[in-house]
Amino acid sequence: MRIDGRKPDQLRPIQIQRPFTSAAAGSVLISAGETTVLCTASLDLSVPPWKSPDDLTGWVTAEYNMLPGSTAPRKKRERSKVDGRTSEIQRLIGRSLRAIVDMEALGRRSVLIDCDVIKADGGTRTLSLTGGYIALADAVSQLVPAEGVDRPILKDSIAAVSVGVIAGEVYLDLNYHEDYAADVDMNVVMTGSGEFVEVQGTAEGQTFSRELLNRQLDVATKGIEELTRIQRETLAVT
Amino acid sequence: MRIDGRKPDQLRPIQIQRPFTSAAAGSVLISAGETTVLCTASLDLSVPPWKSPDDLTGWVTAEYNMLPGSTAPRKKRERSKVDGRTSEIQRLIGRSLRAIVDMEALGRRSVLIDCDVIKADGGTRTLSLTGGYIALADAVSQLVPAEGVDRPILKDSIAAVSVGVIAGEVYLDLNYHEDYAADVDMNVVMTGSGEFVEVQGTAEGQTFSRELLNRQLDVATKGIEELTRIQRETLAVT
Amino acid sequence: MRIDGRKPDQLRPIQIQRPFTSAAAGSVLISAGETTVLCTASLDLSVPPWKSPDDLTGWVTAEYNMLPGSTAPRKKRERSKVDGRTSEIQRLIGRSLRAIVDMEALGRRSVLIDCDVIKADGGTRTLSLTGGYIALADAVSQLVPAEGVDRPILKDSIAAVSVGVIAGEVYLDLNYHEDYAADVDMNVVMTGSGEFVEVQGTAEGQTFSRELLNRQLDVATKGIEELTRIQRETLAVT
Amino acid sequence: MRIDGRKPDQLRPIQIQRPFTSAAAGSVLISAGETTVLCTASLDLSVPPWKSPDDLTGWVTAEYNMLPGSTAPRKKRERSKVDGRTSEIQRLIGRSLRAIVDMEALGRRSVLIDCDVIKADGGTRTLSLTGGYIALADAVSQLVPAEGVDRPILKDSIAAVSVGVIAGEVYLDLNYHEDYAADVDMNVVMTGSGEFVEVQGTAEGQTFSRELLNRQLDVATKGIEELTRIQRETLAVT
Amino acid sequence: MRIDGRKPDQLRPIQIQRPFTSAAAGSVLISAGETTVLCTASLDLSVPPWKSPDDLTGWVTAEYNMLPGSTAPRKKRERSKVDGRTSEIQRLIGRSLRAIVDMEALGRRSVLIDCDVIKADGGTRTLSLTGGYIALADAVSQLVPAEGVDRPILKDSIAAVSVGVIAGEVYLDLNYHEDYAADVDMNVVMTGSGEFVEVQGTAEGQTFSRELLNRQLDVATKGIEELTRIQRETLAVT
Amino acid sequence: MRIDGRKPDQLRPIQIQRPFTSAAAGSVLISAGETTVLCTASLDLSVPPWKSPDDLTGWVTAEYNMLPGSTAPRKKRERSKVDGRTSEIQRLIGRSLRAIVDMEALGRRSVLIDCDVIKADGGTRTLSLTGGYIALADAVSQLVPAEGVDRPILKDSIAAVSVGVIAGEVYLDLNYHEDYAADVDMNVVMTGSGEFVEVQGTAEGQTFSRELLNRQLDVATKGIEELTRIQRETLAVT
Repeated sequence: MRIDGRKPDQLRPIQIQRPFTSAAAGSVLISAGETTVLCTASLDLSVPPWKSPDDLTGWVTAEYNMLPGSTAPRKKRERSKVDGRTSEIQRLIGRSLRAIVDMEALGRRSVLIDCDVIKADGGTRTLSLTGGYIALADAVSQLVPAEGVDRPILKDSIAAVSVGVIAGEVYLDLNYHEDYAADVDMNVVMTGSGEFVEVQGTAEGQTFSRELLNRQLDVATKGIEELTRIQRETLAVT
Repeated sequence: MRIDGRKPDQLRPIQIQRPFTSAAAGSVLISAGETTVLCTASLDLSVPPWKSPDDLTGWVTAEYNMLPGSTAPRKKRERSKVDGRTSEIQRLIGRSLRAIVDMEALGRRSVLIDCDVIKADGGTRTLSLTGGYIALADAVSQLVPAEGVDRPILKDSIAAVSVGVIAGEVYLDLNYHEDYAADVDMNVVMTGSGEFVEVQGTAEGQTFSRELLNRQLDVATKGIEELTRIQRETLAVT
Repeated sequence: MRIDGRKPDQLRPIQIQRPFTSAAAGSVLISAGETTVLCTASLDLSVPPWKSPDDLTGWVTAEYNMLPGSTAPRKKRERSKVDGRTSEIQRLIGRSLRAIVDMEALGRRSVLIDCDVIKADGGTRTLSLTGGYIALADAVSQLVPAEGVDRPILKDSIAAVSVGVIAGEVYLDLNYHEDYAADVDMNVVMTGSGEFVEVQGTAEGQTFSRELLNRQLDVATKGIEELTRIQRETLAVT
Repeated sequence: MRIDGRKPDQLRPIQIQRPFTSAAAGSVLISAGETTVLCTASLDLSVPPWKSPDDLTGWVTAEYNMLPGSTAPRKKRERSKVDGRTSEIQRLIGRSLRAIVDMEALGRRSVLIDCDVIKADGGTRTLSLTGGYIALADAVSQLVPAEGVDRPILKDSIAAVSVGVIAGEVYLDLNYHEDYAADVDMNVVMTGSGEFVEVQGTAEGQTFSRELLNRQLDVATKGIEELTRIQRETLAVT
Repeated sequence: MRIDGRKPDQLRPIQIQRPFTSAAAGSVLISAGETTVLCTASLDLSVPPWKSPDDLTGWVTAEYNMLPGSTAPRKKRERSKVDGRTSEIQRLIGRSLRAIVDMEALGRRSVLIDCDVIKADGGTRTLSLTGGYIALADAVSQLVPAEGVDRPILKDSIAAVSVGVIAGEVYLDLNYHEDYAADVDMNVVMTGSGEFVEVQGTAEGQTFSRELLNRQLDVATKGIEELTRIQRETLAVT
Repeated sequence: MRIDGRKPDQLRPIQIQRPFTSAAAGSVLISAGETTVLCTASLDLSVPPWKSPDDLTGWVTAEYNMLPGSTAPRKKRERSKVDGRTSEIQRLIGRSLRAIVDMEALGRRSVLIDCDVIKADGGTRTLSLTGGYIALADAVSQLVPAEGVDRPILKDSIAAVSVGVIAGEVYLDLNYHEDYAADVDMNVVMTGSGEFVEVQGTAEGQTFSRELLNRQLDVATKGIEELTRIQRETLAVT
C-alpha cells in the first residue's frame, strides 16, 4: 500500500485548468497529486538563427524552471547559469515534443513551451511534458498549416510518466518520497498511438536486470494510455 | 471614462487565493484586474553572511520575476543575468517590506519573498508588494518573536499602488495601456497607518509641477487605504 | 550646526574643472565638498540597435561607476557583473538627462555620459547628474540640430540634489555621515525651469508623513535653484 | 554492409594505450575506429562540500570535453559556459561510474575522471565511459580500502555502447555517419555481470515500437560483453 | 624630429599631483604628455586566501582600467569580463611592484594599487607602474615594518618606460601615434639601482636583431634613470 | 649537473608524432622531456568580424589550454572564464605565429592553432609555439597563396625556448623543478633566420643585470637554432 493509498500501477489524480492565463497562446495549470506545473505555449513568427533562410520548416523548443517556492527548503533561482539537471530536462521536453510536430506543416514559425513548476512532489519533468503537449495543442489550434501543406501540424499526441523500483516492486508515477527511495528510476515518453519516443532508465544505487526493465515498461505503457485518454478528453472541450 | 470602465480614482478589482500552494510558508495568488502575481514567503533559519555572528536580528529579502508566458510577445528568462529593471523592482520590494518588520522580534531568521508574475497588465511591482505583504504575514504568523522580545514581528501593514498623469488628469492603478500613455508615472508605498515608505515619481516625456505631484499623492493615498482594508479582511480569515 | 559648519538648507561648496581631459567631447571634474566625480560625454554616430532604421531620433545613456580608491575600505571593481545599486543609479541618470533632450533635434546620434566617482562622501548620484548635464551641454554644443529641425537640442537644464531627515529636521545635500544617520533619504531631480523630473523618497528605518515630505521638497527646490545658477555661470564661460 | 565493412552487430576495433601520461593516477588513450578519447583519473583527498564532515564515504565525478581539433569544422571551446549536451554527458558518465564504486570502501576521498575527446567519429560518450572505467580501475588500484572496510573499492566493471536503427535494421556502435542517419539512437550502460546501469533510447525523427526496443537491447548486450572482455584483458596487464 | 618636438631619447614632460584624493592611503595623478593616470594605493589588513594562516608575509596586487572617456572613440567598460590586454597589464604591474617589496617587512597586510587611465595617449602601462610606485611609497610610509623585522618595507624604487623602433630608429616613451607606427615595441621595468625587473620586446610587423635589441635597452635605461630622479624628488616632499 | 643529467645549455629530447589525429588540417603531438602538447591547426574560410569586408588579408589565432590530468594536483578546467595566465600565453602564441605569416598570401582565410597540454613539466608555452608552428606549416601546405600573390604563405619558421637563472648560472629549457627554483625566467621567440620576435624576461625574486640578460640571450639563441633544425627535419618528411 502506497503512502497516498494508490495501487502500484495507479496514477495520481490529474487536474487541469485551461486556459490559466490569457497572455500566452496556450496556457495550462496541470497537477498530478501535489505536483503542479504551469505550462504556457507562445507563438513566434521567427525561427532559430541556425535555420537557413530558405528552410521553410518550423521549430519547437522548451524551457523548464522550478519556482523558488515550489519546494521546502526554497529552491534558489537559476539567474547566472542553468544547472545540468534543468538543462537535461528542457532538452528532453523539447526533443520529445518535436517528435510529434510536422515541421513542414508548422511552417517557418516557432512554438516555445514554458514549464514553470509551482509545486514539486516528484515527476515534474514528465508532468511538464504531459501538460506541455496540451498547451502546444491549444497554441497550434490557432494556426493553419503552412501554405501548400495539407497535413495537420500535430502528427500524434504525446505524454510521459515515471516508473520506479522499490524493494523489487515496480511503481507507477512516483511522488517525491517514493522517488527518493527508488533503486531504479525510469522516465518513459510515448505517443498516443503507443510508440516510444524516449526511454531513460537509471540505476539509483542498484543495477537492474532485463526482466525488471520489461516490467517497468509494461507499467509505464499502462500509465501513458491513461494520460492519453485524459489529454483527449481535455482537448475535446473548446 | 477608462478603457475598463473605472473612475479615475478607482482600483482594479482585487482577487486573492490563499494559500495557493502548500510548499512555502506563505503563498498568495493575487490579481488586480488582469495582472496576476504568485507571492510566496519562505522561512530560512540562517541570515545573510554580512551579518556578524553576534547580531541577533533577522532579515527580509525579495525576488521579482516575470514568467515568460506573462506577456505577449513572450518575455525571455533572465538566466545569465538579471536586468536593471528587475533588480530595481526587487530592491524596492525588499526595502519596503523591511520597513514594517521588527528585526529584533524576528530574531536570527530570514524571510524570502518571491514574486513571480503570471500575467502582466501594468502595476506588477506594486501588486507584488501588496501581495508579498500577505505572504509575509502568513509566514510570520507561524513564528513566535525571538526570545526576550515581547513585541509582534510586524510593526504595521504595507501596500503599494501606482498613479499616473495622462493628458493632465490623475489616474489610480494604471493598466498596461494607461501606463504606456502616461506622462508621469508614480509608485507610492504606504503603511496601514498612513505613513509613506517610498515615493517614486518619474517624468515620462513630460516634467511635472509641484501641484500635480500633490494631486497624485492624494489619489495614491486613497488607493492605499482601500488596499489596506482588503489586506485586513483577507488576513482576518485563518 | 552640521559637522562641516553648514546651515540645514545650505549646499556644500561646488567646484568645477572644465574641460578636465581632452579625449571626450565633454569632460567635467565636479566636486561638492569632498565628493568628486569625473563626468565625460562621448558622441557616437550610431544609435542603440532597438531603434528601427527609419527612426531618425537620437539617444542619451549614462554609466555610473565608483573608482576603487574613492572610498575606504576600497570599493571592489564591478568586473563580472554590475550590482543593483549601480544599475539603479545609471538608469536614473540616463532617464533624467533624456527628459531635457529633444531627440528629434539630436538626430540619429548618441551621447554617452560616463560618471566615474573619484571620491565618495555622499550624494554621488545627484552630483553625477548635475555634472553630467554640464558635460552633455559641452558635447552637444559641438553639434548642429538634425536637418530640418530648428529647435535647440537641449530643451532645458537639469540638476539634482539630496535631502534627508535626521531627528525630525530636514537637511540639504547630505554628506556621508549625515546620509548614514538619516531616517528618510530623498533624491530630487528638477529642470532649470523648476519642474520635477524625478522624486525618490525612501524611509530608512522610519516612515514619514505627508507634511515631512512637503518640507523636504521645499528644501530640495531651493538647492536645485542654486545648482542651476552655478551651471549657468559655468556654461557661460566658453 | 556498413561503410567500414563491419557486420551490423560488430564493434569497431578497440585500441588502448595505458598509461598514456604519467601526471594522473590513471591515464588511458582509447580508440574505437577513428573515435579517440584521453581518459585520466585524478585522486583527491577531499570530498565535495555538500558531504557532511562526519560522512566517511567518497565520491566519483566526471568531466567530458571535446578538443577543438577533434572535429571538422573545429569545435569552439566551452570557456564561458558548458552547453547542455556536455553537461548531460558528464552527468551520465559520473552517475554510471558511481554505480560500481563502493563509496564506503573508497573512504573520504574523491576520484575525478576526465574524458577529453581527441577525435570524434560517433560514440564519444560511450567510449569515454568504457575508457574512463579503465582509468578509474588503475587509479583505484593504488588505494587500499578505507579503514575497517574489507571489501574491494570496485564492485564490478562497467562499459557502454551505442546502438541505432537505420531503415528498420539494428546496428551496434555507430560511427558519425551512421549516427547521423539513425532513426533511433540508444546508449546502453551495463556492468561486467550483465546488469543495466543506464538505458537511454531516443527517437530521432521516427518513434519506435517495443519490439524494436528489445532488438536494440539484445545487440547492445552482446557489444557490452565484448567490451567487458577487452577491459579485463587490458587490466590483467600491470 | 618627433611630432611633439622631442628628441629621440627624450621623455615626455611628467606632471604629478599628490595626494589627488584623500580616501585612499596613497593617491597620485600622474601625466606624461597627454597620457594621464590616477594611481591609488589602498591598505588592507587581510592577505589573499591562498596564503596559509601561519604565513606572516604580505602581498601587493594591482588593477588597471581605462576610463571610457580616456579615448575617442569611447572605450567600452569591462563589466562582464576583463579582456586579455587588461589582464596582462595588471599582472605586469603587480609582479613588478612585488619585486621591490620586502614581504616579511610588510607583514600580514596587503596593498592594492589601482591604476585608472584618465587619458590614453600611449604608454599607459608604463606610466601606471611609474605612478603606482609613488602611491605605493606613500601608502607604505604610513606603516611600520612587521614586528621583529628591522628592514624598510621597500627594498628599492621602480619605474617603467616604453621604447620602440620606427624606420630603424630607436625612440623613447612613445605616444599613441608613434606606438601605432612602431615596428618593435618594448616595455622595460627597472629598479632605482639600475637592475632589470621586466623586459618585454615584441615584433610588431617586423622582427629585430640582437643589435637593435641592445640599442633599445640603452635608451630605456637612460629614460628610467630620469624617471627615478623625478620619483625621488617627488617623494622628498612630504 | 641538472636533475635529468643535461648540460646547462642542453635542450630536453624532442619527440614528434605527426599527424596525430586526422580531423584537423595539421596535428602534432610534441614532447620535450616529460612536457607534452597536442597542437592542431584548423582552417576556416572566414576571418574575424573586425576585418572590413574589402580587407583581403587573413588571420592566425591561437588558443592554449592545460588538460586537467596534465598536472598533479589536477588542474581545474577554465569553463566559466579564462584566467590571466592562459590569456597571456595564447596572446603570445598567436602574436608570434602571425609574425611569420604573409597575411596577403594567406588571403581571406583563418588558421586557428589549438595547443592542449597533455603533460606539464615546464616550458608548455614555448613548446606550444614550437609545435604550433609545425601544425601551422602542415595546414598551410594544403593551401595555395591567394590569387594574385606569388609569395609563399609562410615567410620564415619560428620556435621558442625558455632560459632561466639559478644561483647565478644560466640554464636552457627549464623543467618544472628548475622553473620553480629560477630567479629569472625568460622566454625567447626567434625566427629560423635568427631574428627576435619576442623577448620576455621576468625577475622572480631577484632582479638581474644587463650582463646576465646578455648571457641568457646567448643560450636561448643556441637553443632556438637546435629547435629550428628539428622543425626542418620533421617538415622535410611528408
